[in-house]
Amino acid sequence: MADNASARVRGVSATRSQRLLDRQFTTEEMRTVFSDHGRLQGMLDFEAALARAEAQSGAIPHSAGTVISACCRAESFDVETLAAAAASAGNPVIPLIKELTAQVAERDAQAARYVHWGATSQDAMDTGLVLQLRSAIELLTRDLQRLSRALALLARTHAATPLAGRTWLQQGPPVSFGLKAAGWLSAIERHRSRLGQTRTRVLALQLGGAVGTMAALNEHADATMAALAKELELALPELPWHTQRDRFAEMATTLGLIVGTLGKIARDVSLLMQTEVGEAAEPAAPGRGGSSTMPHKRNPVASAVVLSAALRVPPLVATMLAAMVQEHERGLGGWHAEWQTLPEICTVAAGALANTVAMIEGLQIDSSRMAANLDLTRGLIMAEAVSIELAKYIGRRAAHALVERACERCVSGNKPLRELLAADAEVTAHLSVAAIDLLLDPRRYLGHAQAFVERALAASRA
Amino acid sequence: MADNASARVRGVSATRSQRLLDRQFTTEEMRTVFSDHGRLQGMLDFEAALARAEAQSGAIPHSAGTVISACCRAESFDVETLAAAAASAGNPVIPLIKELTAQVAERDAQAARYVHWGATSQDAMDTGLVLQLRSAIELLTRDLQRLSRALALLARTHAATPLAGRTWLQQGPPVSFGLKAAGWLSAIERHRSRLGQTRTRVLALQLGGAVGTMAALNEHADATMAALAKELELALPELPWHTQRDRFAEMATTLGLIVGTLGKIARDVSLLMQTEVGEAAEPAAPGRGGSSTMPHKRNPVASAVVLSAALRVPPLVATMLAAMVQEHERGLGGWHAEWQTLPEICTVAAGALANTVAMIEGLQIDSSRMAANLDLTRGLIMAEAVSIELAKYIGRRAAHALVERACERCVSGNKPLRELLAADAEVTAHLSVAAIDLLLDPRRYLGHAQAFVERALAASRA
Amino acid sequence: MADNASARVRGVSATRSQRLLDRQFTTEEMRTVFSDHGRLQGMLDFEAALARAEAQSGAIPHSAGTVISACCRAESFDVETLAAAAASAGNPVIPLIKELTAQVAERDAQAARYVHWGATSQDAMDTGLVLQLRSAIELLTRDLQRLSRALALLARTHAATPLAGRTWLQQGPPVSFGLKAAGWLSAIERHRSRLGQTRTRVLALQLGGAVGTMAALNEHADATMAALAKELELALPELPWHTQRDRFAEMATTLGLIVGTLGKIARDVSLLMQTEVGEAAEPAAPGRGGSSTMPHKRNPVASAVVLSAALRVPPLVATMLAAMVQEHERGLGGWHAEWQTLPEICTVAAGALANTVAMIEGLQIDSSRMAANLDLTRGLIMAEAVSIELAKYIGRRAAHALVERACERCVSGNKPLRELLAADAEVTAHLSVAAIDLLLDPRRYLGHAQAFVERALAASRA
Amino acid sequence: MADNASARVRGVSATRSQRLLDRQFTTEEMRTVFSDHGRLQGMLDFEAALARAEAQSGAIPHSAGTVISACCRAESFDVETLAAAAASAGNPVIPLIKELTAQVAERDAQAARYVHWGATSQDAMDTGLVLQLRSAIELLTRDLQRLSRALALLARTHAATPLAGRTWLQQGPPVSFGLKAAGWLSAIERHRSRLGQTRTRVLALQLGGAVGTMAALNEHADATMAALAKELELALPELPWHTQRDRFAEMATTLGLIVGTLGKIARDVSLLMQTEVGEAAEPAAPGRGGSSTMPHKRNPVASAVVLSAALRVPPLVATMLAAMVQEHERGLGGWHAEWQTLPEICTVAAGALANTVAMIEGLQIDSSRMAANLDLTRGLIMAEAVSIELAKYIGRRAAHALVERACERCVSGNKPLRELLAADAEVTAHLSVAAIDLLLDPRRYLGHAQAFVERALAASRA
Repeated sequence: MADNASARVRGVSATRSQRLLDRQFTTEEMRTVFSDHGRLQGMLDFEAALARAEAQSGAIPHSAGTVISACCRAESFDVETLAAAAASAGNPVIPLIKELTAQVAERDAQAARYVHWGATSQDAMDTGLVLQLRSAIELLTRDLQRLSRALALLARTHAATPLAGRTWLQQGPPVSFGLKAAGWLSAIERHRSRLGQTRTRVLALQLGGAVGTMAALNEHADATMAALAKELELALPELPWHTQRDRFAEMATTLGLIVGTLGKIARDVSLLMQTEVGEAAEPAAPGRGGSSTMPHKRNPVASAVVLSAALRVPPLVATMLAAMVQEHERGLGGWHAEWQTLPEICTVAAGALANTVAMIEGLQIDSSRMAANLDLTRGLIMAEAVSIELAKYIGRRAAHALVERACERCVSGNKPLRELLAADAEVTAHLSVAAIDLLLDPRRYLGHAQAFVERALAASRA
Repeated sequence: MADNASARVRGVSATRSQRLLDRQFTTEEMRTVFSDHGRLQGMLDFEAALARAEAQSGAIPHSAGTVISACCRAESFDVETLAAAAASAGNPVIPLIKELTAQVAERDAQAARYVHWGATSQDAMDTGLVLQLRSAIELLTRDLQRLSRALALLARTHAATPLAGRTWLQQGPPVSFGLKAAGWLSAIERHRSRLGQTRTRVLALQLGGAVGTMAALNEHADATMAALAKELELALPELPWHTQRDRFAEMATTLGLIVGTLGKIARDVSLLMQTEVGEAAEPAAPGRGGSSTMPHKRNPVASAVVLSAALRVPPLVATMLAAMVQEHERGLGGWHAEWQTLPEICTVAAGALANTVAMIEGLQIDSSRMAANLDLTRGLIMAEAVSIELAKYIGRRAAHALVERACERCVSGNKPLRELLAADAEVTAHLSVAAIDLLLDPRRYLGHAQAFVERALAASRA
Repeated sequence: MADNASARVRGVSATRSQRLLDRQFTTEEMRTVFSDHGRLQGMLDFEAALARAEAQSGAIPHSAGTVISACCRAESFDVETLAAAAASAGNPVIPLIKELTAQVAERDAQAARYVHWGATSQDAMDTGLVLQLRSAIELLTRDLQRLSRALALLARTHAATPLAGRTWLQQGPPVSFGLKAAGWLSAIERHRSRLGQTRTRVLALQLGGAVGTMAALNEHADATMAALAKELELALPELPWHTQRDRFAEMATTLGLIVGTLGKIARDVSLLMQTEVGEAAEPAAPGRGGSSTMPHKRNPVASAVVLSAALRVPPLVATMLAAMVQEHERGLGGWHAEWQTLPEICTVAAGALANTVAMIEGLQIDSSRMAANLDLTRGLIMAEAVSIELAKYIGRRAAHALVERACERCVSGNKPLRELLAADAEVTAHLSVAAIDLLLDPRRYLGHAQAFVERALAASRA
Repeated sequence: MADNASARVRGVSATRSQRLLDRQFTTEEMRTVFSDHGRLQGMLDFEAALARAEAQSGAIPHSAGTVISACCRAESFDVETLAAAAASAGNPVIPLIKELTAQVAERDAQAARYVHWGATSQDAMDTGLVLQLRSAIELLTRDLQRLSRALALLARTHAATPLAGRTWLQQGPPVSFGLKAAGWLSAIERHRSRLGQTRTRVLALQLGGAVGTMAALNEHADATMAALAKELELALPELPWHTQRDRFAEMATTLGLIVGTLGKIARDVSLLMQTEVGEAAEPAAPGRGGSSTMPHKRNPVASAVVLSAALRVPPLVATMLAAMVQEHERGLGGWHAEWQTLPEICTVAAGALANTVAMIEGLQIDSSRMAANLDLTRGLIMAEAVSIELAKYIGRRAAHALVERACERCVSGNKPLRELLAADAEVTAHLSVAAIDLLLDPRRYLGHAQAFVERALAASRA
């Protein structure tokens, strides 16, 4: 019978639920933070702490604070009922407070008078969201740190592993794979610093009452605000910020910046993973990245998720920025546009980050393929090395022109550059064949790659 | 015990669900179309029809077609299980086909060989989505028609109801409320025409197999494609379009255009509904638009939803356009970015449309307040009428300058424009006081408002 | 002295101009359409035609129409002077009319009274923009047709040229290059159809006077509107549309859709042009796509421009959609947001289109490299062909599993698939070695590629 | 003749220029920073400093450094010639270096060898842009400070000036105008802090050579990088960041946040400036905000510019975030998408900021109109005050219900709330008529508005 009930509920749920694709694009942890339960509990944590703070400040009786606080458990509320009422009321706080008051009244009719005392719906919604964001920032901070460690390991391990540098998707002079990873790492380190600065600003209490004057709490306002900020461990702002949305918008922009870098990493990995390149591969696992029609395929499924996030998040950030234009003391439309957008940014960013962590921690590097690909152009990608050396003798533009002509013959005649250079009197007037050979060795032309890696690692440790 | 089970399931569900705000921003009908059930059934409808079409074309045994088709019921699949497998497989079709094959095998092991025969995951996902979009377009078409009727009624009723025209949020010469409604109406009529054109393009079969060549179906391909298009009542395109995403992107842009007009309507209504203007009001209902702190408030809750949609949808359209850049024969990231974005556009647009319909059908018009507001400027808004008439005698620029000076005295001296004009010899040289009075009557300066309304109504009927 | 003057002007100009990058991202033709001169002339064409139409309708004297019309030449106006005044006036029409009136007055003081008679600034700006858009649509239509022809040629020529199909950036079963081009072509054909439908809606007269009632023109309004529409060869709408911006927004969305497809083409070409793939290349030309440091490099400079457009245009489309929410009879901010945005969409789209035309018309195809790349996986990409054939005997899932195992051994053991299949008794129980050889031949597994190409070509001719 | 030349140049220029609307949407200062001249000089400053740094490090001869440095003057280069060559080369640095080399060669053929020594095009473009951004940040910092001062003055002056609080565009309990200004101020202060943090990250040298290894400079790389950073007074990053674009993207997001707040201010001001509200007005000036058809109009032209910026900038920020996904060692399309987008964000933001400064510094406040509007609802907006007081006796929900009923009678019967409350026994059981009068006085219900203003002012001073 329980099975039947469960099956029935599951069926009903599927005609409304949006879970089928959800696990691919976010983490279960972050989805929990930004679930109906998470939002309800965020608002209820506000209401509970408000009641306790008001009891401390003397705004409401001590017993009321205790009873109200005890009733603020999300499990006691039915989401669908609240959702239906919210649609008509204009926000979910109104029916939530009505139901909470009823539940408190069952225990203590006196206490029920003091539910939500002096607060406005937006106080509960904003502070509740701030509490959710605190959890989100914790998860993101942890995963950024993990990504940083994984990238540092990659950078260190492959500091001197040569592969073709690629500009405009064309091979150029060599770099090391560690340098590539160090570039990713240094961006992630800047993001960790940005997220820390954002955290300081965004974790702020919202409490202002109807229009932000705290008029309803009168002489108890100051003490209540201070006590509430302390209860919730949030910063106490100089004044309520109902229509100053820069705090929430900054959360969005910081995540937008992070996701941009994750997208860059995924673009690089997926390009390296192409059949024709084959220098790196996402970690393999049973059932992971298979194709319904092509049995041998290993699809870069993590990259796909991250790249999709890098397409989806920037416009969502634009929504948060555009929504900042909120009217007077309460926004009409702008505020409402945030409600589902900021959570979506957080969940999609979390999915992208988790996929990047998994991808980087298990990244398979094929250094022999990297070496093989360095030979694809028969020396052309080393042309700069020769050009630079020749320039010492005949100037940059003359050297460039001379080497360019050799390169053209190399391409048209399908001959190695080494052979053509060694046969060119203008070249050999300045460079011996042995010198040419050294100049054409990719391993000897990594420049400061290793030094750069070390600096990035040092900065990451700091 | 069932209650406990239900409560337990509900609790579990709330830690993942995203329903709390959903009912405010979309309709239950459209949510059902774009629910997990809707998506599953869309893909299963494709698989069922594919099996039947292949049975007709001889690609698979007739009995296999029958059994497979019979098993394609969304109720038989568990969303959470599929979701978990989809995250690792890279798309939900792979686990769905695996599970469908298992269910078919229970009935007929032979038939199980032919599930998804010759198709690729994207065939099922794209065609499934097309089927969902067909339902969505039906709902939207119905509601656009309803909105058109309501707007036509408003336009007809108030064709001659004067109110201040407002440019740059400043009062200008009068218009009629019917003209305002006719402007909204004419835009909606163009949108209905656009949606019809989009419908023709978007309701197209996707069937191409692994890379769009239909190689796997070989000699049965043509007949299967034709039969499948017929089964699903979809257009048969010249060729598969796995990475040509203009069809889906156009669905997004068309909805973006529609939502833009809905936002314009909501902006107008919410401005008219301001306490200081009070010329129109959203329909009232018990519990609708109340405030948690301000007992007398009637908030424009429908406008808020529509305006939030007008902020959210444009960036989502940008995502769909940016996601069109898909690689080779299957997109990496771009395709995935569409999966949740296009449904979100449809659901948010549906919510905005439903709210606009409700708002317009029950819109309360206060024509006496409109008339009162026409007097607010002591005649200033009629200055153009006077200026135009005077220009006949002294030229446009001289008239403009003369009237402008009168207006400045009107503002600075706080005197009615009528009085100042009647006392100005340069004016009375050309206009009698009676003529001035007629010129200052807003009802006589509606120009072609009524004719324009009639033309818009005629075009709407056509 | 002329040299000095020229140098001085050039220097001054460079401290304000934005031309340095302009030629890379748009065409000189489209820049001319959307230059200051183009915009001024558009508005002046409106004023000239308005004067002639009003003379016809009797609203103004015939001689005034003639003189005003004769003065409406952009060359007679100084852009910087108008720009400075526009910033303070709030739009460029106000100073333009002031200056035009002065110029008319020099010829005929009477006529000067009738400049801009009965119109509002937005009438001139909107209709002027419509006239610019007409020129833009002509250029775009011409280039889309040219692109269509070039794509059709590519599709026809390479209908049977095999190359690897690529899904998720991994090689899959073969396609033909003609099929790839046919996919691009079919999208372009749909865009041509869309642009035609958009053209019908967008080329509409704007004339409403101050608040859209035509009150100022009184009994001459109807005849003037009809005559003006005829003069300008624009459609006469049912009513003025000052704050119904769907026409302009649709121009943006249609270009957004087009640019999305251009981006898809450029993404494909640039991926094919990678050093490691080398199957196609942008046309070469002296000085084109060189590198400042790498003498041998040929950069895909056209692809870069097109891909940058595909990143820039979608958000600009979002701006146009978001800006549709315009207040009452004249938008505050929304209207202004369009002024530079729609021209930017047109110019960037034109640059992307011109670059795509050049790229496709001169595209270099390396079919031998395509053939070589088909061998890269030692037969893996033909696994589906074998799997499909085997499935006829042992079912889809069993065949898939069997071939998947062979593929894994192929990958791990670095042996050709042919060898492994030929040695597998489960396979040879159903397939002879000769049959396996045929199944592994890419040329024999192009499915309906050629038929699809022919259908796309036929549709394109239609 | 000079006149002819000038007219000819002007005419030619207008067929390409985009200046007509430019002065309305940006400042001439910021346009100068982001003009062709500004960009050229930025790149030339890089080349000059590079030559000097390389001379110091011994990479090139000392004399070469001196000559090259002396030639790097933007005035010596013709923008149109460079623009034409850039379109074909793929970036403007290639023709610029070619021309610079030629100019250096005229003075010193030896020195010409060392132009751009060891650098890549992107080094010059990125560092040049960083130098432009430094100028931009200086201008923005100055104007933000000016705005902060003007807002502080407003907040202080009107700390106790009551006006209606407005939520959902409906009047609610009173606030003070100073509180409104203090809310704006506190957001601006956070933005100043953000811009400072962004400045620290964004003002970083870009120097990496072809692929970011500095291979071409070999043993001189370290000393050159350090010397160049010092020459340009830029931070020396751990490693080159050619495809790590978070620095530039953060510049965009920070400006996006700032413009969001400016839009909020402009929305508030323009709503207050409505004819029907009339509580504030943009500063008046001759010719400012006039209407071409309505002589008396004073349009909120500054608000229009700011609101248009608040529509345009968020999608441009999205472009910068989406463009972060850049391939390997040099982006294809992503990099190019930044070139015109980041300057556009800076110029549009500067225009919005300058308009806000002018608007706020000259804002006209009509406190008597504020007082009059407080009476519009006959006491309804004071209902909360009564409700809160009554709740002390009968509980929150009962009080809310009782007052709500009084409010409904007030609305339906068109009677003052005072009268209805004074006649209600349930009310007078707890409140005397004198108490009711005090409760209904808006000046006595400003809560902590003044205290909040003081805190915001104190934080601003800190």
